[in-house]
Amino acid sequence: MDMNLVMNSMWVLIASILVFLMHAGFAMVEVGFTQSKNAVNIIMKNFVTVAIGVIGFFIVGYGIMYGESFFNIFGTSGFMLLNTPDTVSGISFEVFFFFQAIFAATCATIVSGAMAERTKFLAYIIFCVIATTLIYPLVGHWIWGGGFLSQMGFRDFAGGTAVHAVGGFAALMGAKLVGARDGKYKNGKIKAIPGHNIPLGALGVLILWFGWFGFNPGSTLDITSPLTAHAAITTLLGGSAATLSSMLFSTIRYKKPDAGLTLNGALAGLVGVTAGASMISYFGAIFIGIVAGIVMIFAVEYIDTKLKIDDPVGAISVHGVCGTLGTICIGLFATDGGLFYGGGFGLLGIQILGVCIVALTVLTLSYITFKLIDKFYGLRVESHEEARGLDAMEHGISAYIDL
Amino acid sequence: MDMNLVMNSMWVLIASILVFLMHAGFAMVEVGFTQSKNAVNIIMKNFVTVAIGVIGFFIVGYGIMYGESFFNIFGTSGFMLLNTPDTVSGISFEVFFFFQAIFAATCATIVSGAMAERTKFLAYIIFCVIATTLIYPLVGHWIWGGGFLSQMGFRDFAGGTAVHAVGGFAALMGAKLVGARDGKYKNGKIKAIPGHNIPLGALGVLILWFGWFGFNPGSTLDITSPLTAHAAITTLLGGSAATLSSMLFSTIRYKKPDAGLTLNGALAGLVGVTAGASMISYFGAIFIGIVAGIVMIFAVEYIDTKLKIDDPVGAISVHGVCGTLGTICIGLFATDGGLFYGGGFGLLGIQILGVCIVALTVLTLSYITFKLIDKFYGLRVESHEEARGLDAMEHGISAYIDL
Amino acid sequence: MDMNLVMNSMWVLIASILVFLMHAGFAMVEVGFTQSKNAVNIIMKNFVTVAIGVIGFFIVGYGIMYGESFFNIFGTSGFMLLNTPDTVSGISFEVFFFFQAIFAATCATIVSGAMAERTKFLAYIIFCVIATTLIYPLVGHWIWGGGFLSQMGFRDFAGGTAVHAVGGFAALMGAKLVGARDGKYKNGKIKAIPGHNIPLGALGVLILWFGWFGFNPGSTLDITSPLTAHAAITTLLGGSAATLSSMLFSTIRYKKPDAGLTLNGALAGLVGVTAGASMISYFGAIFIGIVAGIVMIFAVEYIDTKLKIDDPVGAISVHGVCGTLGTICIGLFATDGGLFYGGGFGLLGIQILGVCIVALTVLTLSYITFKLIDKFYGLRVESHEEARGLDAMEHGISAYIDL
Repeated sequence: MDMNLVMNSMWVLIASILVFLMHAGFAMVEVGFTQSKNAVNIIMKNFVTVAIGVIGFFIVGYGIMYGESFFNIFGTSGFMLLNTPDTVSGISFEVFFFFQAIFAATCATIVSGAMAERTKFLAYIIFCVIATTLIYPLVGHWIWGGGFLSQMGFRDFAGGTAVHAVGGFAALMGAKLVGARDGKYKNGKIKAIPGHNIPLGALGVLILWFGWFGFNPGSTLDITSPLTAHAAITTLLGGSAATLSSMLFSTIRYKKPDAGLTLNGALAGLVGVTAGASMISYFGAIFIGIVAGIVMIFAVEYIDTKLKIDDPVGAISVHGVCGTLGTICIGLFATDGGLFYGGGFGLLGIQILGVCIVALTVLTLSYITFKLIDKFYGLRVESHEEARGLDAMEHGISAYIDL
Repeated sequence: MDMNLVMNSMWVLIASILVFLMHAGFAMVEVGFTQSKNAVNIIMKNFVTVAIGVIGFFIVGYGIMYGESFFNIFGTSGFMLLNTPDTVSGISFEVFFFFQAIFAATCATIVSGAMAERTKFLAYIIFCVIATTLIYPLVGHWIWGGGFLSQMGFRDFAGGTAVHAVGGFAALMGAKLVGARDGKYKNGKIKAIPGHNIPLGALGVLILWFGWFGFNPGSTLDITSPLTAHAAITTLLGGSAATLSSMLFSTIRYKKPDAGLTLNGALAGLVGVTAGASMISYFGAIFIGIVAGIVMIFAVEYIDTKLKIDDPVGAISVHGVCGTLGTICIGLFATDGGLFYGGGFGLLGIQILGVCIVALTVLTLSYITFKLIDKFYGLRVESHEEARGLDAMEHGISAYIDL
Repeated sequence: MDMNLVMNSMWVLIASILVFLMHAGFAMVEVGFTQSKNAVNIIMKNFVTVAIGVIGFFIVGYGIMYGESFFNIFGTSGFMLLNTPDTVSGISFEVFFFFQAIFAATCATIVSGAMAERTKFLAYIIFCVIATTLIYPLVGHWIWGGGFLSQMGFRDFAGGTAVHAVGGFAALMGAKLVGARDGKYKNGKIKAIPGHNIPLGALGVLILWFGWFGFNPGSTLDITSPLTAHAAITTLLGGSAATLSSMLFSTIRYKKPDAGLTLNGALAGLVGVTAGASMISYFGAIFIGIVAGIVMIFAVEYIDTKLKIDDPVGAISVHGVCGTLGTICIGLFATDGGLFYGGGFGLLGIQILGVCIVALTVLTLSYITFKLIDKFYGLRVESHEEARGLDAMEHGISAYIDL
């Protein structure tokens, strides 16, 4: 028996399980940061996302992402795990699939947060099917499945682009097309709609952070490599640095340490170091974390006040902007090839080009998807449904009784 | 040093820890799906269940379940871990006990959900002692401790019968004997009593799912076996398929995607694949998941409207019915011996017979236990206590203040 | 490749991740056991604690705790992980640091609970910096970094003193110096101020228990040692025994099974076995658990009614008193050297002396720190801020809306 195979498979199996709990984290963050009248609807979306993500990736997604490549554009084999090898990348095939399937579901979840509180349940479900069987696996093939971006030398260790930015770009398009919540932008004024359960949201952030230690360190697929523990530490430092920078910066800018921004700050730092967690130094992680915590705040403000795109949980800023930031930062901070480590502009250019290609692709595909859904079914609930709340209207239930 | 021993022990130790968190999942599901006035009481029951389960299993239960067999009926040695071997099934004895002790406590928890909101605290505690020191270990001996069911060829990989159906049968008897909550069935009408905190319930389901990846894959006790990752994938697929089938079926039947049934659907699928997680194919897991999600809804309806047994959280349907279903499905779907894989009716017959024997035993033993408790102490709180809520009456506290 | 190194590093990496989730547990316990008007403030403190703990330990703390020793008093190298070895104690250096950094943050968290609801946000932050860069690492050096206490033969397996008692002593001083919450002790009467969200607090306790299986068994740093699984079982038994003893004793003393005391009882048992988890027998663990569950209740009463020190969450009793108790119990119950196992009074004396030295040190250092903070900035919020709640006053937010 190959000991390395067993140990690496064990590690990735456990890391996958940690990543699975991130779905609880996403659900709690999205619930906590939105209004109580839509809490059940958000939960239903999160459950459906996991279920569709897993089944869709099993049937179609895996094959497109990791199947035999058709001109480096998409995979063409391995659908429903038929004719798959025994091992992949030094771990058992089953474990590899398990890890990938749980990843797949996280991407769509990001979108559900940005479109929360006014999107039709079935409309989201249809998008979720497309996202987990087509959009995510396609881009995933380019980056991780041997496709053209990876052949260009584009680097994305744990999914700063492949998962977070892809989710964030689709979230941007979705939030734009579905429109702002009623009353959000009215008579030139911007109404803040605060979250209804901050403790639950905070719990969600800490659960996400916990799962991130499977997400990033697990992505080496190799417990014998020193990079695994290195990625654990950069994940810890990046999240911590961003927590502090966003708290401090929100205090400077808004006079009080803002809870929503600090919690999102932690996530921004975690997203920020995801792309390069194994490639950057500890100081690089701290620096990227600090920057991500501040950039996220500017992004939230810009998207809200300038673009007037309504993102209830800040998903576009956290995942889209900071995922992009972290991916580009590899070009600066990668200790083997980054600009600041004497590697010149080559890697930086590739990273910027790669993330632009992904942005263009995801924005286009999600535009088409949302437009088609809108045309044939409708994206948005009726105004009176939105006012009353999706829990009552779509599910006939109330999230809380007699508290 | 034996590397396999170390690796397998490490894996099962970690799997046990994951299973431990299921107690948080059970607690949150039961709290979320019941009324706010009984939330603290439910939490207290969950804590007591863990504590009694562990201590009772340490002192008595383990010996009955895994001790030297007395005519294949019960074990007779190993009480308080005296005179135990160094290793069991290729892992360290300590780890084996740790895994088993945490399992033991989950069985009684199922009962607490079905009897919630009207059962005396001490009555439940007494039952819990009997369940974890006698009922669960006895049946466990038959199935996993080398007893007569295992010798018949009865199969139950991770506890579809040994844990879930045992819990579900006892829950059925308990809910029947303690009677419905006041006002539940009145003048021929059935009153729905909705849960008070769905986000917490949903968090509980996701935590349970997370723990299930220790529960099922951990049950191979062998990380070197490909069955471990196989069981992880069937667990993922089964839960996902059932989430979708129960959501879809609830929409068809009740016009709206029902949150309670979808969340319980996820659990139904997880219970459904538990017995055979290592023996069924991926398609088998998806099929069993789909069926479990639908059967659970019929069971909930039947138990509520026909049997008029009041199960506040649906524990009988989820654990009892789907645990039974999954155990019998081994006879159909086991790739090495199931009817659909050319194995004939032999295994199917054994599975049905086995689960009937267990049902009869558990129903009888729990009937006797509950009747004795009722006679000497009383099972049920006074009507005015029930109306006021157990938190105020039994614990002098309120679960929530100033929300 | 050294298989042992890989396996042990994997185990400690995973254990560290489990410990990380304890921060979610602490946050939920502290939120649940205090008033709703301060929930966000508590969460902010928990996030800042993690972030400062990690960054502070990275820059300064690790070096003081594990650097080259200056006369066995403090370490002098390894700051910012410069010039560190490849391996420590048979695991990779990176994993060792990761484990230690996550531990460091838990110590300060304990203090935030005891000082909750009336301490200025920035005052706590300053203390947190001192605690994680100076106080905790200094004492840690004495106990675990090769300092004089360890050379005396003082034993503390997983931090009964180094983490819990240190946190508890600082919490005692902090709660004393900041003073009781307004209205807590008035006209000779003691007002009980109940927690506002018991389900969330209970979830926190179960999450902490889960993380404790990383905290204690992980502290062997050696998965090949039978002590690892032994520590898992003593942790399970100790927590269980204390749950039962505190529930029973609270029923005897206050006529009802008290939820707050039972939940804190579980924690008391877990703290109680932490110092000796690898050194005591299973019966020793049960005994210490029983005692810890009862002693904690006396301590809560004594601190509240006699000392009139206001500790909203019982942190001083749980962590300070039971951490001390468990450390001293090593002198009685250690199977290799304890009084009850024929080891004489030697070890017992050393344990008592050691914990006294730590108590004196921590009380002194935290006294100085808090006094300086008080003098130059102020420890306590204004009375009207306290009345209105820190969420509104310090963060401009409400934890809950429209529940």
